[in-house]
Amino acid sequence: MNPTSPLDNVRIVLSHTSHPGNIGAAARAMKTMGLRQLYLVNPKSFPDNEANVRASNARDILETARVCSNLTEALGDTFLVAALTARRRNLPHPTYTARRAAAELIQHANHYPVALLFGRESTGLTAAEISCCQLTVQIPANPDYSSLNLAAAVQIMAYELRMMLEGSDDTMQCFFPHLSEAASLQEIEGLHRHLEQIMISSGFLDPKQPKRLIRRMRRLFARTRLEKEEVNILRGLLAAVDTQHPPKS
Amino acid sequence: MNPTSPLDNVRIVLSHTSHPGNIGAAARAMKTMGLRQLYLVNPKSFPDNEANVRASNARDILETARVCSNLTEALGDTFLVAALTARRRNLPHPTYTARRAAAELIQHANHYPVALLFGRESTGLTAAEISCCQLTVQIPANPDYSSLNLAAAVQIMAYELRMMLEGSDDTMQCFFPHLSEAASLQEIEGLHRHLEQIMISSGFLDPKQPKRLIRRMRRLFARTRLEKEEVNILRGLLAAVDTQHPPKS
Repeated sequence: MNPTSPLDNVRIVLSHTSHPGNIGAAARAMKTMGLRQLYLVNPKSFPDNEANVRASNARDILETARVCSNLTEALGDTFLVAALTARRRNLPHPTYTARRAAAELIQHANHYPVALLFGRESTGLTAAEISCCQLTVQIPANPDYSSLNLAAAVQIMAYELRMMLEGSDDTMQCFFPHLSEAASLQEIEGLHRHLEQIMISSGFLDPKQPKRLIRRMRRLFARTRLEKEEVNILRGLLAAVDTQHPPKS
Repeated sequence: MNPTSPLDNVRIVLSHTSHPGNIGAAARAMKTMGLRQLYLVNPKSFPDNEANVRASNARDILETARVCSNLTEALGDTFLVAALTARRRNLPHPTYTARRAAAELIQHANHYPVALLFGRESTGLTAAEISCCQLTVQIPANPDYSSLNLAAAVQIMAYELRMMLEGSDDTMQCFFPHLSEAASLQEIEGLHRHLEQIMISSGFLDPKQPKRLIRRMRRLFARTRLEKEEVNILRGLLAAVDTQHPPKS
């Protein structure tokens, strides 16, 4: 395998997977397309023989998989996270098709780690999980039955990522603007914590009813694809506002 | 579902499937993308509870699946058959990527039934099975490990077929020449049988060693995409040659 492939910068993150067979099948799906980085957030059972069986000759992916106790551990050092979702949300992030999202992810993966986040088999990702991501991805599907198996969804995304690299005339041509240095998820989360603290201390936000407003802010910054310097500027501003904030009249 | 969708003209044919779970997972993969026509050629076990479980809410696809005892029964009334294969063959048919093949199949499916043929989990399609098809399809994959699970391969093909219909600017633009009336697989098989009979009766073909020559003929006609009238002309010619063929000197 080419050690400099951007595919090595793409991690698949499975959150709270119930069926170990799906973990094995996802590992196989990944390896067939050249992906290697598997992160498991609180899997119900892992390692597990059913996962090994379904992985077939992709057990090496399972053996090097990283088990995490929370999402931040799995995503902290990534710079772009895309959340797979089948449902419409009240406060939608920018939503990409699988193909568009793959193009976006590969472009970023040329420079730094990115992640694709998949939720529970039964209920998908929680709103809190989605709010950690910069974009959501929908796989075009039958509107009457859009419930893809977890490993099948991983397979399609892994396939679309690989197709972006194939470079044949089959591959969709894409245009990507040049990116300046992007902020990491850790930096963005730091900004959000800081922002929330200021929103509460300023009396702008009722800490008993924070969710809707916080999600709106997250959505706003998700669309902007923050750069490092922008985060620094915003945090500088927040720090300045915090010390200078006058008491409520 | 739109009753005039070309997806209703695309059948998925699974030959000699060993694991009933894969049949169920394939049914689910199909339904998520709007495909409904499942044909099973000599499945090891069907119906089977494992298939029902893996089908999830796509059991209706299993209930209307047609079980066939041979490939001709499954393909006879189709007009274009594409064979999924991971390996290089000695006498390759024209080989398309998944995306190209999907474009080709959808174009034909606007007019008449087409099929995607998938082989055994362990060994794929036999050379004899492939020789019934007009083209082979490869899903771009990791050259070090290209062994997709059967249902995962069905999922990717079903997804690419659906993507051809989505009509968004994500969809690859394709150009298709106008097709005049194509020959059905039954008509083409009739031609091949006739041809083989003539090749033997004429002494051109040693009936003890027929395979390589016959495959070359099949490959030739697979490339041409025979039209009905061409088949009629060829058969007319064969019939004429047969009665007029002089005894070997």
